[in-house]
Amino acid sequence: MSAYSQLEKYFVRLANIEGAVAILDWDWAVVMPKGSAEIRSKQLSELSLIRYDILSDPKLSDLLCSAEEEKAQLNDWQRANLREMRHNWLHSNAMQSDLIAAFNQAASQCEMLWRDARQTNDFKSFSRGFKPLLDLVREKAEVKSEVLKISLYDVLVDEYDPGFRTIDIDSLFADLQSFLPALLNEIMDAQTDQTLPIMPKGPFNIAKQKELSVKLMEKIGFDFEIGRLDESHHPFCGGVPGDVRITTKYDEDDFTSAMMAVLHETGHALYESGLPKNWRYQPVGKAPSMSLHESQSLLLEMQVCRSQEFFSFVAPLIKTVFLNSELKTFDGFDSENLYKLAVNVIPGPIRIHADEVTYPLHIMLRYHLEKDMIEGRLEVDDLPDAWEHWMKDLLGLVPKNHGEGCLQDIHWATGDIGYFPSYTLGALIAAQLFEKAKTQINRIESDIALGNFSALISWLSEMVHSQGSCYSSQELVKRVTGRPLDVRAFEKHLKTRYLG
Amino acid sequence: MSAYSQLEKYFVRLANIEGAVAILDWDWAVVMPKGSAEIRSKQLSELSLIRYDILSDPKLSDLLCSAEEEKAQLNDWQRANLREMRHNWLHSNAMQSDLIAAFNQAASQCEMLWRDARQTNDFKSFSRGFKPLLDLVREKAEVKSEVLKISLYDVLVDEYDPGFRTIDIDSLFADLQSFLPALLNEIMDAQTDQTLPIMPKGPFNIAKQKELSVKLMEKIGFDFEIGRLDESHHPFCGGVPGDVRITTKYDEDDFTSAMMAVLHETGHALYESGLPKNWRYQPVGKAPSMSLHESQSLLLEMQVCRSQEFFSFVAPLIKTVFLNSELKTFDGFDSENLYKLAVNVIPGPIRIHADEVTYPLHIMLRYHLEKDMIEGRLEVDDLPDAWEHWMKDLLGLVPKNHGEGCLQDIHWATGDIGYFPSYTLGALIAAQLFEKAKTQINRIESDIALGNFSALISWLSEMVHSQGSCYSSQELVKRVTGRPLDVRAFEKHLKTRYLG
Repeated sequence: MSAYSQLEKYFVRLANIEGAVAILDWDWAVVMPKGSAEIRSKQLSELSLIRYDILSDPKLSDLLCSAEEEKAQLNDWQRANLREMRHNWLHSNAMQSDLIAAFNQAASQCEMLWRDARQTNDFKSFSRGFKPLLDLVREKAEVKSEVLKISLYDVLVDEYDPGFRTIDIDSLFADLQSFLPALLNEIMDAQTDQTLPIMPKGPFNIAKQKELSVKLMEKIGFDFEIGRLDESHHPFCGGVPGDVRITTKYDEDDFTSAMMAVLHETGHALYESGLPKNWRYQPVGKAPSMSLHESQSLLLEMQVCRSQEFFSFVAPLIKTVFLNSELKTFDGFDSENLYKLAVNVIPGPIRIHADEVTYPLHIMLRYHLEKDMIEGRLEVDDLPDAWEHWMKDLLGLVPKNHGEGCLQDIHWATGDIGYFPSYTLGALIAAQLFEKAKTQINRIESDIALGNFSALISWLSEMVHSQGSCYSSQELVKRVTGRPLDVRAFEKHLKTRYLG
Repeated sequence: MSAYSQLEKYFVRLANIEGAVAILDWDWAVVMPKGSAEIRSKQLSELSLIRYDILSDPKLSDLLCSAEEEKAQLNDWQRANLREMRHNWLHSNAMQSDLIAAFNQAASQCEMLWRDARQTNDFKSFSRGFKPLLDLVREKAEVKSEVLKISLYDVLVDEYDPGFRTIDIDSLFADLQSFLPALLNEIMDAQTDQTLPIMPKGPFNIAKQKELSVKLMEKIGFDFEIGRLDESHHPFCGGVPGDVRITTKYDEDDFTSAMMAVLHETGHALYESGLPKNWRYQPVGKAPSMSLHESQSLLLEMQVCRSQEFFSFVAPLIKTVFLNSELKTFDGFDSENLYKLAVNVIPGPIRIHADEVTYPLHIMLRYHLEKDMIEGRLEVDDLPDAWEHWMKDLLGLVPKNHGEGCLQDIHWATGDIGYFPSYTLGALIAAQLFEKAKTQINRIESDIALGNFSALISWLSEMVHSQGSCYSSQELVKRVTGRPLDVRAFEKHLKTRYLG
């Protein structure tokens, strides 16, 4: 058996273990009894150790070298798979197991401190956990930097968004900054001339909201024979291709929040389901990056479903679903009002509540701060001041406390530095892909207005989902749209939608 | 570190993997999308392979030998743990991996044929899968028999009920047969003199049935902070101690079926939760046998909850729960009628519907047939005739077709031979333990009539649950009740309950 074929067997094993972990993680977030976390942690640590052991098997390392020498005999998919195998191997083997253990311990320690500190506005307490964690993140980055031959911050980004480098992100974010703050002002001015949308009045029965979610998911093409919809504290898309599980969170006073979350997660889910089945148990069968994954959720939620066309389709459906519920009034259920609600721009301090116009500003702030911390230009003690400074500069806001300031997100508290850019990269990719889709699919807007998503989903499936990691995200964007990723489609989209 | 301490580390790893498998199994039965079975199978096979690899590590084998030499330095629990480790090791290492693979493949092949054959009454088709499977079961038994130095059938029983031997079971079953068929006739005669109980008329709202289940579980002592109740096709108790998950199946026309299933599974769950926490990740921290496990479910369901006392407690509760539902009548909701329903004896062809009087007859039939097949006295082709013969002899019934005859159970179709005796051994143990409990706990019957189970559960926890596998099932029964397991308590129980 060739070295490459033997490698595939190793990666099937890894995929099965990762799949088991994905289900156990879903279970934790959705159905696990409160008191069972310690037991589950031990199971997950064990599986993560087994995964590490397989990836650090010296035989695997030898096979990788042999396969790379025989590369000429491989087809394109196999070559791409081999590249992804090496990428996984590099990230897994760069760190010694004692550094991994120290990192994991510091991360869970810091997360615990963060949970309290956010409530009690106690930055000092958080920083006691965050300083040692940040040191370990830097140590991790240094070790990996030696191996991957890229800068410290690039190493961290490379874990989530392989191939994206600081130099690319700097340039894209500078382009965004050149128009977005001014555009935001224009949009706010334009909004003041309009009548305010009204919030439909609940209570909105949870079972009915779920019924609406399922109807929309089915319309869009989610297959419940190989997937589920459940509830969790934060919406997410989990499971594995072939058993994709999305969640949402229902609010009795606002049905739109669960609905938009479902649309977002359905975008992720369709991507997972559409990944190439022949490569399901291999690295090349996965998404190449978090940003491309996020592009698929944002394309569906932001580009497709926060449109007048979508609301002209969904408004009557919403009304039908809630018709026989306890609602006293259907004021505000018309498509015009619901659409206005969906595109209402309100700059606020909290990222996860941000609209698509202000969201990139939240990300740029985090990007600059975390890069500065990693590269030694910003001390942890100075983080709150730096946060205030950027927040004022980008959004004209001052957080009332650390809970709506630099302690609002879990990412840093768990050592996930280098992740934030993917949200905005995803938004840019979504805009550029959808701009192209509109030129290649006939009557896409009128299809959406009729609740017919099949042409769009087929296009995405062909152009993006079925490609797995055969190309990097940047290559894929260029292949599909004819040019490298830039901010033009996103800028045009915002101007068209918000300034008409 | 001593050899024994190193062994404990291995078994912690195994316990974590087995725990992950238990949750994935639960997921399969309760929430997994229909189309995801193939992916899940692969995950489970991978984990089972990892478990096998750990148990067949030559280092583990050396450590076992070293630890057995240093046994004098161990305390009682550690010694028992070492014994259980060796038992696990023997069963896991007796078979070569190719025999395991062949067995698993034949079992899943046969199970598939069985699912159809049972519907279509096609014994020939089933036997095409069962013959090769039976050969592999025998091969497995032969290989293990060499190692364990016990007979073929004893080897199979030893997988589920370590320590129980054919000679013990033969003797217990002969004792049962000496009185049970005659007693059944007496009971049937006595029943004809009584007015028939009536079946309360539904539909019984599923949410209300669930509410009743939860109320009963809480009353009995199930802790929902570390456990769940869900629905599945067949009721079962899954998960792990600290995350115990029971299921039931609701029938809109008959609330008693789900209720009795919940009581049965709660018995299993309390056992799991009561196992010694200090030994949670070690073999000695588990139940020593399937029969002792079954004794805990049967003690609760059959001994405690099919009693007049229990129904005098539960009848008003049931009425309260269903009070504001769509029921038109509450005829038959009185405790006298519900009790009569719960102890109504109706000989029938189907084991899983059998009452506690006829159930052992179903088991004896299967015991004799499977032992004859393993020991070469019965050919697969002659199984249906042999089944009819025993069925007529023991229960006076002739099955209408194979679906209510020898194809009714899944056990043989999946190669689970040697399992059936545990049901009846469990019933005998339950009777003998409960007989003792009544002599050691004051006012146990009046407690039950008041819905107060705490004294009984404490007693079971102290006498049985917290003992883990420190003693074998037989030793435990003798220690707690003062005599080896026999049929006397069971016989007395049946005579008291059914003949007054």
